[in-house]
Amino acid sequence: MTRVVKTQVEQEGRIVEEKVVVDGPELEPWPPDAALEVVGRPVSRVDAVERVTGRAVYTHDAHPQGMLYGKVLRCPFAHARIKRVDASRALLLPGVRAVLTHQNAPPIQWIDGLQLLDTVARYQGYEVAAVAAEDRQAAEDALKLINVEYEELPFVTDPEKALQPDAPQLHPEGNLVGGRSRVYERGNMQQGWAEADLAVEESFHTQAALQNPLEPHGSVAMWEGDSLTLWDSTQHVYAVQFGLAGMLGLPLHHVRVICQYMGGGFGSKQELEKQSLLAALLARMAGRPVKIMLDRADESLVAGHRHPTIQHLRIGARKDGTLVTVELKALVPVGAHGSDSIVEGPVKELYLCPNVRTEVSTVRTNEGPAKAFRAPGYVEGSFALESAMDMLAERLGIDPLELRLKNYADMDQVRGKEYSAKNLRQAYTEAAEKIGWASRPHNGSSAAADFPFITRKRGIGMASQIWGGGGGPPAYAVVKVNADGTAEVMLGGQDIGSGTRTGMAQIAAETLGFPLDQVRVLLGDSQAGFYAPASAGSRSISSLGPAVRSAAEDARRQLLDIAAQMLDVAADQVELKNGHAYTRSAPDQRRSVSELLAAFSNPMVVGKGSRGPNPPDRALRTFGVQFVEVEVDVDTGHIRVLHVVAMHDCGRIINPRLVQSQFEGGITQGVGYALTEERVVDPQTGRVLNPGLEEYLVPTSMDIPEINASALGLPDPHSNNLGAKGVGEPPIIPTAPAIANAVYNATGIRLTTLPMSARQFLQRRSAP
Amino acid sequence: MTRVVKTQVEQEGRIVEEKVVVDGPELEPWPPDAALEVVGRPVSRVDAVERVTGRAVYTHDAHPQGMLYGKVLRCPFAHARIKRVDASRALLLPGVRAVLTHQNAPPIQWIDGLQLLDTVARYQGYEVAAVAAEDRQAAEDALKLINVEYEELPFVTDPEKALQPDAPQLHPEGNLVGGRSRVYERGNMQQGWAEADLAVEESFHTQAALQNPLEPHGSVAMWEGDSLTLWDSTQHVYAVQFGLAGMLGLPLHHVRVICQYMGGGFGSKQELEKQSLLAALLARMAGRPVKIMLDRADESLVAGHRHPTIQHLRIGARKDGTLVTVELKALVPVGAHGSDSIVEGPVKELYLCPNVRTEVSTVRTNEGPAKAFRAPGYVEGSFALESAMDMLAERLGIDPLELRLKNYADMDQVRGKEYSAKNLRQAYTEAAEKIGWASRPHNGSSAAADFPFITRKRGIGMASQIWGGGGGPPAYAVVKVNADGTAEVMLGGQDIGSGTRTGMAQIAAETLGFPLDQVRVLLGDSQAGFYAPASAGSRSISSLGPAVRSAAEDARRQLLDIAAQMLDVAADQVELKNGHAYTRSAPDQRRSVSELLAAFSNPMVVGKGSRGPNPPDRALRTFGVQFVEVEVDVDTGHIRVLHVVAMHDCGRIINPRLVQSQFEGGITQGVGYALTEERVVDPQTGRVLNPGLEEYLVPTSMDIPEINASALGLPDPHSNNLGAKGVGEPPIIPTAPAIANAVYNATGIRLTTLPMSARQFLQRRSAP
Repeated sequence: MTRVVKTQVEQEGRIVEEKVVVDGPELEPWPPDAALEVVGRPVSRVDAVERVTGRAVYTHDAHPQGMLYGKVLRCPFAHARIKRVDASRALLLPGVRAVLTHQNAPPIQWIDGLQLLDTVARYQGYEVAAVAAEDRQAAEDALKLINVEYEELPFVTDPEKALQPDAPQLHPEGNLVGGRSRVYERGNMQQGWAEADLAVEESFHTQAALQNPLEPHGSVAMWEGDSLTLWDSTQHVYAVQFGLAGMLGLPLHHVRVICQYMGGGFGSKQELEKQSLLAALLARMAGRPVKIMLDRADESLVAGHRHPTIQHLRIGARKDGTLVTVELKALVPVGAHGSDSIVEGPVKELYLCPNVRTEVSTVRTNEGPAKAFRAPGYVEGSFALESAMDMLAERLGIDPLELRLKNYADMDQVRGKEYSAKNLRQAYTEAAEKIGWASRPHNGSSAAADFPFITRKRGIGMASQIWGGGGGPPAYAVVKVNADGTAEVMLGGQDIGSGTRTGMAQIAAETLGFPLDQVRVLLGDSQAGFYAPASAGSRSISSLGPAVRSAAEDARRQLLDIAAQMLDVAADQVELKNGHAYTRSAPDQRRSVSELLAAFSNPMVVGKGSRGPNPPDRALRTFGVQFVEVEVDVDTGHIRVLHVVAMHDCGRIINPRLVQSQFEGGITQGVGYALTEERVVDPQTGRVLNPGLEEYLVPTSMDIPEINASALGLPDPHSNNLGAKGVGEPPIIPTAPAIANAVYNATGIRLTTLPMSARQFLQRRSAP
Repeated sequence: MTRVVKTQVEQEGRIVEEKVVVDGPELEPWPPDAALEVVGRPVSRVDAVERVTGRAVYTHDAHPQGMLYGKVLRCPFAHARIKRVDASRALLLPGVRAVLTHQNAPPIQWIDGLQLLDTVARYQGYEVAAVAAEDRQAAEDALKLINVEYEELPFVTDPEKALQPDAPQLHPEGNLVGGRSRVYERGNMQQGWAEADLAVEESFHTQAALQNPLEPHGSVAMWEGDSLTLWDSTQHVYAVQFGLAGMLGLPLHHVRVICQYMGGGFGSKQELEKQSLLAALLARMAGRPVKIMLDRADESLVAGHRHPTIQHLRIGARKDGTLVTVELKALVPVGAHGSDSIVEGPVKELYLCPNVRTEVSTVRTNEGPAKAFRAPGYVEGSFALESAMDMLAERLGIDPLELRLKNYADMDQVRGKEYSAKNLRQAYTEAAEKIGWASRPHNGSSAAADFPFITRKRGIGMASQIWGGGGGPPAYAVVKVNADGTAEVMLGGQDIGSGTRTGMAQIAAETLGFPLDQVRVLLGDSQAGFYAPASAGSRSISSLGPAVRSAAEDARRQLLDIAAQMLDVAADQVELKNGHAYTRSAPDQRRSVSELLAAFSNPMVVGKGSRGPNPPDRALRTFGVQFVEVEVDVDTGHIRVLHVVAMHDCGRIINPRLVQSQFEGGITQGVGYALTEERVVDPQTGRVLNPGLEEYLVPTSMDIPEINASALGLPDPHSNNLGAKGVGEPPIIPTAPAIANAVYNATGIRLTTLPMSARQFLQRRSAP
């Protein structure tokens, strides 16, 4: 049954080839018209009570006996040499148990060949020392007693300046990551431009937005001999396990990472974090467990942010609206050590276009690392592309929706493959009707609202979305059925907060034919579970879900075998439903699973399964569209989003209520991204000016529009054995450009910089 | 692969028919001459450092946040009606959080239709109330503030008196358990006695001996909503899980039982104990975790003891020594609610004899429950049988060993089956040679030792043993192989202290072809693991071991598949050894498992397996013999055991060092059982006179003889896929009768009552 297969897996907007090991039953998806009992029902979260009563153990709640509190001393400068660290006074403070500085840290290479605690700090918030003490206050006091002598160095935070030859250099290869820009080209650009009847060209600027998970990053580290247990607020317990094992030279079976509950991550918690390693080292020094949780200011400085971008976009089209060429040049600063971002994804994929060129320069700057943030790259890229599409539509005098339908891509042009499923056309139609697209005002023609002396204008805009979410191997699951007919699903993955326990329980219950409450999902423990992917890339449902179905199917087949032998019929004559085995020939011969198993002495049925390979000849993508109605106060520049109609195409829906949460969360985050959120760095000092939720403005309940979001719910026949795809990221993608297009529709003013602040609106209004 | 099979399983000396579910690879045992790399090596315990440094978490060490301390108020009388319980003052004591009495306990039937906290206490130590408080002292103080009004009732502790019609009755059916004696008969007794040339007849008395595990019984209970976690010092996490689920009406997937380390149980910790349920109820009342650990006095009163017996034995033989008939009548008191004991086992099984009759009366008395204790029944029964065999040998003028060989049973006469393997003859020969049996003194002829004024006599005695230890299903295991070539063996079972982690790691490492330190065994958690049998019946190796081999084999086959595909050869051309895959055709094409798996993105290989069925046509038994040299001070009556030579036949040895521990532990406990251990109940009051280790005398290091013990190490071709059988219990069986026979050999005095105290010796010496 074991197979080594080559497959393609979606990773942050990128499709990568992988070899994986597949084991366990491989299944066809349920037929689209299958009468499912549990899957598809909007059941409440199975762990809702734990969460709302505070019983759920988050990393913050982990408290092994003897635990110390750790704190990190951070560099206040954007770039500095650490000349001297004197921790001697800190060590004298009562309650202080360990201090770690570059002088006593073990030689561990963290990134780019730099030491874990390096003597050059490349961004504000850089870790200079760490302390473990009996209580939080002692740890904080100790930080103040550590004497650090810094030599301030020149810094750069502007990506354009960072590429100039005289800029401070953050890396031996220079500030351009990889030493050159990343270029993609298809077709013939010269010919494309020759064929174009007209072009639009615009520069777009997007900001650094913070993931701001409700629960900050942090860890509790505990050693037992040469084995390490780490409670970590992480989207990927196995990545942290691998990271710790690698950095500390431990074998994997001596590293256990636990994340039973978490308060979000939005992409910023996918890997081993430096504070986790510092906690592990302090715990080893002190011989006691150590907890380090970041505070909100730390989160703002070092825990990640969405990549800012400068995108210069040119689109060439025929008079009839047919795209002939698209060209993108983008500058993406990633901070001192961030990973890159696929800002060019939408331009390459979203519309049919024969000639495309993208050139992305990833630039190092003196800031904390940029990290993945809900549909990374595609959010930024879609803002530019979908804004430009509306500009083109207006130039052409074509309805923006019509322009998009005109350039509808029926296949994946980057990979030359058919889509496994694409129902975006249906999504357009349904959502347009809901918002009343046909009767929207002409651009800029909106009448002022009827409030005297205040000029509020309303408009409607739209934008569409492409993203992955098809997931892929590897992912493994084990399902055990107890003697009383209850089942436990054993996973190694974690629940980022999206309801993984619930979705997986539904899949297992459906497959086994058990009532939902007879199924419990165990997850969040690398040791007690089995390899599972990150809770990222919209792939919990699409990667882990199929493994759960495979394992449950393995258990189900065993139950059918047993039932068949006990009822003395062929196995294919038995069915499992609602916790009972039936024979097809005599449906009254009903036996509950617990009755079946009660005939044995304490048996257990153990099923295992894995995520099968992706189809080699199909591209797995999700699609969607959002229509937005806004009201703009043209005198104050204040933009209010009134109403969002979203329609997404993400395959079979396992639980509509969980999907609704993602819609609401994604759209809300999209509104914040569009209108208010921005981490501001002072160009004079390189310091973050708003490291906290008082000055960094996430939407409050008062800012959230009426959200009318749905999914088409059409199973994808090729995606996996569920027909499902992920929907965690897609809803944030089209929100900002749809708002920008709605603002234009209302006011005739095109905003090309995020966030779309009142100030920007007013500046543009008064611009010539 | 799933099969429902009928099989026979050994349970405390009894063979029972079971239906079980079998899944996973079924394997032949390794050939006897297989060159094994890890199995058979005397490696140190893999968890030795945890244990000796105190890092291992026993139940005593479990301390969930907010934990309260529970204490139990116990009845001081052997039989009493509880007329009134007033806990009002206890509840006023600061720190007291919950008090449970029969007035507020939920209606839970504990045993024999009686309530959990019944209003009639049937033995000293009976649970009357339970308290949970912030610390131990508050809990103890609270007990003193609970006012109980008792009405003392007549009691009976003597089993003969308990069967008299006027005895206090402990049960509606009377004091004879089941209402009648248990009778076994084969052949024709009348004809047997007619054929006998002579007979020996004797009454034997054996005492109540305490299991006295180093770690007492106890639990920590913690509720999370409607889910219960119990840390319990138990030999069977699943029995406790089943018990709790049944008593509390919980589904199995909401009950988790944890026992990561334990300090012994010796049979007394196989089920849900009352204090565990009390802890769970108190925890639910208080809304906080509760720990209840028994103290040593509680252990002596209520935690179990080996069944005392009165055995009347008659053996009829021909002049040439051929047994023709054996007849046993036994009286076995079990306390108020104890389980019965197979005292007749040895008489039925050990020797070839056509006519056998046993009649065992199990009697209720006003004492705490008797419980299984290392080879229950067989220890008591063998004392009588093996003493009587020596008496017969002397009457016949035959060498005792010769008499045993004369009546050697080549097949199981009870079940009419061949033994899977029996090499007792070889064990006799080898051990007899080691002790110098041929040159032992004639009975009673021993010269006094050469110390002046003190008359010490030396003698040699022997006894043999039969027992189960073949184990059987159900038992399940999962083995996961990590990307770096390390492996984790996931079991639900527990390690009673015999080294289960080590033995299972060796089996997995051998099967996988991995070095031992690349394998870690996870056990002791019903939730994180898979059904495993009790650490009892000498079946950890023989039940769980084969499941581990099966699961590891499933993983190994997958690794071979992967290696074959990567090396581009057929799977049967690849071998795994020492963590590397080789191709047979090109042995230099060596790849480590981690190299193999490094080619993948984070894969994992998951294998599962189960214990296969026992062979239907074979009886699985273990055998052994012990020869003992003693020195008796005939003036003081003091008996000293000088030397024990043991030779046991228990199949393939997985780890000789672990086996040696069982030999030394069993023989030491046998010496205590033979000479000093006895729980004494005052016939006047029904109270235990020596509830503590100062007055209940277990052997100290000074009492332990030179032990020269070995196992034959001949794999059993039919027992299971390891060829192994258990050896936890067998070593205690022959020790006491071998000592009795040695004492007789030295002094000519036959001791028929245990323990063989100096007082008894002197009484016998001065008897006519």
